[in-house]
Amino acid sequence: MSGLFISFEGNDGAGKSTQVEKLAAHLRKSGFTVQTMRDPGGTDISEKIREIILDNSNYKMKHMTEALLYASSRCQLVYEKIMPALRAGQVVICDRFVDSSLVYQGIARGLGIDVIKEINKFATGGLEPDITFFLHLDPAEGIKRKQSQGSLDRMENEKSYFHNKVYQGFEEISQLYPMRIVRIEAKASAKKIAERIAYYIDTYINERGI
Amino acid sequence: MSGLFISFEGNDGAGKSTQVEKLAAHLRKSGFTVQTMRDPGGTDISEKIREIILDNSNYKMKHMTEALLYASSRCQLVYEKIMPALRAGQVVICDRFVDSSLVYQGIARGLGIDVIKEINKFATGGLEPDITFFLHLDPAEGIKRKQSQGSLDRMENEKSYFHNKVYQGFEEISQLYPMRIVRIEAKASAKKIAERIAYYIDTYINERGI
Repeated sequence: MSGLFISFEGNDGAGKSTQVEKLAAHLRKSGFTVQTMRDPGGTDISEKIREIILDNSNYKMKHMTEALLYASSRCQLVYEKIMPALRAGQVVICDRFVDSSLVYQGIARGLGIDVIKEINKFATGGLEPDITFFLHLDPAEGIKRKQSQGSLDRMENEKSYFHNKVYQGFEEISQLYPMRIVRIEAKASAKKIAERIAYYIDTYINERGI
Repeated sequence: MSGLFISFEGNDGAGKSTQVEKLAAHLRKSGFTVQTMRDPGGTDISEKIREIILDNSNYKMKHMTEALLYASSRCQLVYEKIMPALRAGQVVICDRFVDSSLVYQGIARGLGIDVIKEINKFATGGLEPDITFFLHLDPAEGIKRKQSQGSLDRMENEKSYFHNKVYQGFEEISQLYPMRIVRIEAKASAKKIAERIAYYIDTYINERGI
């Protein structure tokens, strides 16, 4: 597949959506056609699924139901939006992707990485990002940021024990895919983080092309 | 698992929901605690997923998204309602279950039976009905019945070519599980069909118990 597929990962409040937009602006300045998306979400159908996943009233949701809902939302996003964009040679920047399910459902919920990998292979046809930026921030700090932005959704509302597991889970996953996942310290200012990411991407594109 | 798990399968309009209620009434008269459910649906979360699946405005839905949504709705139903009921020794009668996904997504959508089996193993933990009544009716007749009852949903609105594939798919699946799936001619009156099913179930319970 041509094009370039970039994902951002990390705990809630690590600054992913900010960095998605900053990187998109940077690459558009360089003349690339860039599409930004969020997962879950990003298509009409996927956004409806996202609502179910994050709605606090759905507190009875079983872990496997949650895993399958993430996969279904992602499936629609991949086939309706991501694959066509990559085929057209565009850059896709996605706020979360399969790694989040490996971490949240596989590790933090305890379903196991292998099960989640398999379900997501059905959902994505095996599509993987070319590069993943893992924004690394203390989970308590992330949730504090989220709280200051408004009320928390069903996932953000999980206990600190859960967010710590997610944090450790991302460390684990980033060691599983050391060639793809780039660890970025997310304590710095948004501007400084964006500069680091832009530098990394520019180098990547110079070396490999799109 | 104790209890008794009965499912009804067949084309749209074959009379499944009517027979579910008639069989429940029959078994309640015999003193059993009976719970009736529909799949997709049957829990608050599963009903929300059902809405997405059947909404005509979601015409862009990919086949694999559809398969994963059915599985997620079913997962919630199994763990929140069906398993607890069976554990309590109750009778569960469900309007559709995994067989419908094998037929609709596996055969009629062309995703393949094996893929759908695997996804549903994650969703149900391998739970299978003890008995499945396959209501066998000409698909054109079924859709005519549905039209007379009101407007059609996204699945019912599929072309007759699709409903014919579903019809053939149920034949195929009922040959895969000959010990579990009981084929019932659904052209007869609802009363006559209910009598046949009640007779079958009474014999089954007398021989094996619950």
